[in-house]
Amino acid sequence: MNLRLQKLRKLLKEQNLDAILIASLPNIIYFTNFSAFTTIDRDAYLLITKNKQYIFTHGIYKEAVEKQVSHFELISIQRENPIGLAVKKLVAEQKINKLGFEAFDLRVNEYDRLVTFINKKILVPTDLVHQLRLIKTPDEIRSIKDACKLGDKAYSHMLKNLRTGITEKKLAFDLEFFIKNHGADISFPPIVAFGSNASMIHHVPTDTKLKRNSLILMDFGVKLNNYCSDMTRTVFTGIATEKQKEVYEIVLNAQKKAVDTLQSSILNPKSLINAVDIDKTAREYIIANGYPSMPHSLGHGIGLEVHESPRLTMISKDLLKPGMAFSIEPGIYLPDEFGVRIEDLYAIENNELKQLTNSPKNFTEV
Amino acid sequence: MNLRLQKLRKLLKEQNLDAILIASLPNIIYFTNFSAFTTIDRDAYLLITKNKQYIFTHGIYKEAVEKQVSHFELISIQRENPIGLAVKKLVAEQKINKLGFEAFDLRVNEYDRLVTFINKKILVPTDLVHQLRLIKTPDEIRSIKDACKLGDKAYSHMLKNLRTGITEKKLAFDLEFFIKNHGADISFPPIVAFGSNASMIHHVPTDTKLKRNSLILMDFGVKLNNYCSDMTRTVFTGIATEKQKEVYEIVLNAQKKAVDTLQSSILNPKSLINAVDIDKTAREYIIANGYPSMPHSLGHGIGLEVHESPRLTMISKDLLKPGMAFSIEPGIYLPDEFGVRIEDLYAIENNELKQLTNSPKNFTEV
Repeated sequence: MNLRLQKLRKLLKEQNLDAILIASLPNIIYFTNFSAFTTIDRDAYLLITKNKQYIFTHGIYKEAVEKQVSHFELISIQRENPIGLAVKKLVAEQKINKLGFEAFDLRVNEYDRLVTFINKKILVPTDLVHQLRLIKTPDEIRSIKDACKLGDKAYSHMLKNLRTGITEKKLAFDLEFFIKNHGADISFPPIVAFGSNASMIHHVPTDTKLKRNSLILMDFGVKLNNYCSDMTRTVFTGIATEKQKEVYEIVLNAQKKAVDTLQSSILNPKSLINAVDIDKTAREYIIANGYPSMPHSLGHGIGLEVHESPRLTMISKDLLKPGMAFSIEPGIYLPDEFGVRIEDLYAIENNELKQLTNSPKNFTEV
Repeated sequence: MNLRLQKLRKLLKEQNLDAILIASLPNIIYFTNFSAFTTIDRDAYLLITKNKQYIFTHGIYKEAVEKQVSHFELISIQRENPIGLAVKKLVAEQKINKLGFEAFDLRVNEYDRLVTFINKKILVPTDLVHQLRLIKTPDEIRSIKDACKLGDKAYSHMLKNLRTGITEKKLAFDLEFFIKNHGADISFPPIVAFGSNASMIHHVPTDTKLKRNSLILMDFGVKLNNYCSDMTRTVFTGIATEKQKEVYEIVLNAQKKAVDTLQSSILNPKSLINAVDIDKTAREYIIANGYPSMPHSLGHGIGLEVHESPRLTMISKDLLKPGMAFSIEPGIYLPDEFGVRIEDLYAIENNELKQLTNSPKNFTEV
């Protein structure tokens, strides 16, 4: 935690900021490891200056924060001492002339209230903490791996329990139950889609029953010690059609091509790896095989959030570098027919691309 | 759904708005009943004009939205057609001069991007949809009641399964499992706190084991068909101390006093009922008995969100009116000793205060 503060202060200095006001929940967790705040209300903010760090929260978290976030000075906020007023005092006391704030998270009305206390001119939008979080420490990658391992276990458990007649809802429920029963959380509501439902990328599980000679797409993730995993597998019950087999192999090859391209780029230490090129490799392979371009990106970074930087999209400007962790998840979607997606997580560690999820993905009829 | 659009358009007219841009997820659900969008990313917006309604979303939701939100015209947004550009076209086409937007939900950087397309001057912050949602229809109250009923069932199931040695985490897990196994969701992560942990109002369940002669606080809610419940009970294992008994009775009486005050105000159709007075009744009763003022409000509205208007706080300006649904939840918290909270949901239906949660709350030693 202290190392993270040090790194942040180095970045603050580089970007000529005297301090940063942090509002986003994952960023608060990044510096405090305190994960009891909710997204229901705005429960807390952090202010990190050149040599001090403060946590602002309501009375209802006071006791827990005092005990668990002792490396931050606690300032209670309430209607009579709103965040704006509390920050104003510190801005004056510590002569803060440039204060970074998180425009990607702060609401318009929070900002409007803030500038009734603080001169708008000192506020500078920044995504400094995202820049920090983009490059994971070995500890962070280990945490993601731990989440992936439990995800693999959950998947193998699910495979054993597939039977005709089970509903998408029940399967999603069993998946969630398995994960939570192992002391973890889900990183997002599991997607379980049978047959033609699988062409809807963010399908919400229904009462549809599993039939013989159908297809099952499962996209789910684990959250363990605040770090997320994410994976997708598509399997077939009974016998798949020739078209399904073909589509499956194309998706699998698209992933393989993206991985191979990435791996060989990593081996060339002089080359810059553009995320956009990795997306292109998989996307164009799918199109070249006569199937529609994916209506989503090839992949996304992962860590404290299930979707974060880097982005592997058609227009990404991100470079892929050591310490980054992300998904590679090509898919083919044929409305009213079916959909296939295969997703794994990878991290660049030193000069190697490591696969973090390790469930089998050969074409499977169960 | 169409009735809701009608009511909204009436309010738009009253407030001199030509249209409203809706970004908040519960507000989107309110008009579409489509609950597959996530809070992970910004997945959708609505634009409702005097006589048309549009839904903007990404390709990944296209098929599902076409099928399930057919009363809205679908406009696909993507990097090449961002929300700002899409709205700009409609603003020009339909001569929109005053466009409401949700400053309480829209991020600062979303707003900044929006005003690169749209003249800032036509944008008016509004919480119109909250005003609508504040007064529930009988159908909505029925939905909240249904969620409460399942909550009551879950609670009685939990009581049966209390045993020494069980952890807070396991109990919270069992609660969640019971709710999800009944086809519903949780409205927030359950709070289960034993003994001195109960003095932390938003305690996150730990591996603490239940002992004899301890106290259990359970605060949890159900989400069923998008509507939330919320309730808190505090019970004792073995034999409670005299102090615990006293505190329990004071909290229970504080709730009763608030309810009685509210009930008698409702019977007087001429009186305006200030939420602040109901908070005061309970709060002052606790203080008069020598215990500390609650570090939280007496209650909050509930519906599509677990916390919404009206607010029963020390400084609330809300009036309580027929059609409103809210919690009344006094508590006493003694750090390092214990905490007691009792929470029920109520709705004002015609001239009656109806209690929606119905679990027993007499002093209980199990």
